[in-house]
Amino acid sequence: MEIDLSKPILDRNERLAADNKVRFDANGVFVLDLMASPGAGKTSTILATITALRDRYSIAVIEGDIASKVDAEKVKAHGIPAVQINTGGACHLESDMIKRAIDALDLEDLDLIIIENVGNLVCPTDFNLGEDAKVMILSVPEGHDKPYKYPGIFQISEAVILNKVDTMPVFDFDEAEFTGVVRSLNPAAPIFRVAATKGEGVDEWAAWLAARIDAKKAAAAEGGAA
Amino acid sequence: MEIDLSKPILDRNERLAADNKVRFDANGVFVLDLMASPGAGKTSTILATITALRDRYSIAVIEGDIASKVDAEKVKAHGIPAVQINTGGACHLESDMIKRAIDALDLEDLDLIIIENVGNLVCPTDFNLGEDAKVMILSVPEGHDKPYKYPGIFQISEAVILNKVDTMPVFDFDEAEFTGVVRSLNPAAPIFRVAATKGEGVDEWAAWLAARIDAKKAAAAEGGAA
Repeated sequence: MEIDLSKPILDRNERLAADNKVRFDANGVFVLDLMASPGAGKTSTILATITALRDRYSIAVIEGDIASKVDAEKVKAHGIPAVQINTGGACHLESDMIKRAIDALDLEDLDLIIIENVGNLVCPTDFNLGEDAKVMILSVPEGHDKPYKYPGIFQISEAVILNKVDTMPVFDFDEAEFTGVVRSLNPAAPIFRVAATKGEGVDEWAAWLAARIDAKKAAAAEGGAA
Repeated sequence: MEIDLSKPILDRNERLAADNKVRFDANGVFVLDLMASPGAGKTSTILATITALRDRYSIAVIEGDIASKVDAEKVKAHGIPAVQINTGGACHLESDMIKRAIDALDLEDLDLIIIENVGNLVCPTDFNLGEDAKVMILSVPEGHDKPYKYPGIFQISEAVILNKVDTMPVFDFDEAEFTGVVRSLNPAAPIFRVAATKGEGVDEWAAWLAARIDAKKAAAAEGGAA
């Protein structure tokens, strides 16, 4: 006999995600779940996004890691509130972890929360956290074949950030093939070409995100959810 | 109340791993579980290892992926038997998947099986497959801070391959810090500096692996397990 042990975990997670979403919607705060492999550039993309948007929006960051607090410290060094979650081994964030993190934030004062999920192209895709959008980063050194091998995360993401594009000459990265496969998996998602540590290409990504934040704030002002 | 749903899964996996190990030991075949993030260079390291060792040993590869069979095809193109496992979403291989894969191989004719685990720095660490050694790859573009954030995989690995060392000038990779943290997590594990696609540094890694294969064969010849 086989028992699907994942189902009760996912059901409980969905209930708590709905609770989180109610709180996000009531406060008109847009919540982004940012997913990528270890080392793809999640933290540097977050720092570049903060630089691009901090004059217009009030931002906080929730950092998910197996262990350590180095990412939260990097964000706090930029004067942005950050809550570190250590999953203690789990390969993804879950809604109850996010609930505890937002209890430590002033939601009514925020426009944008960026959740940096645990570095992993697989596990985070199954877990709704109550966010408004999941977005993924793939970095050029990981290789253009990754959409073939990890199709789920490309399908669930509302936008794809291709990071470290400045290193394309160093790696055998076939951008046309990459773009074609991503388009076949997810025709609607924009692909943003970024070199986060150099600030390149960040404006277009930040403009997309700003439009989503503004739409959420407008919906909240009308008393509805985005 | 909290119920640890992971325990029955892990217990069953351990039983099947022991079954696999009996078969590996009886045939004197050394089994390597190779773990890394997506894009760290698992397949290219396997191909370089095959090139280094194929004249001395009979080798097969078990390829684990969420989806696709591109890696098994790459290995087969080199004239090496390969079995592709698609986990259908699971972020790691388990012992029952390995059991089915080895049913498709001629164990008595093999000296070395390389298992390419699913690209993930987290999940594969919890699952014994019956292998003789777990080894991990970190690639330079992922960053020198990864041992802080994913300590478990560095602790469980019997050797660490640092791949893409030829790209070190492009990235801000502090090798002294990386080595120091790996040493603190795992003093015994050798760190092999490799550029797998260029064949650099492969000889030292292959020599370490060959010594392990020879020890296993010698133990099997004496009628015991390595």
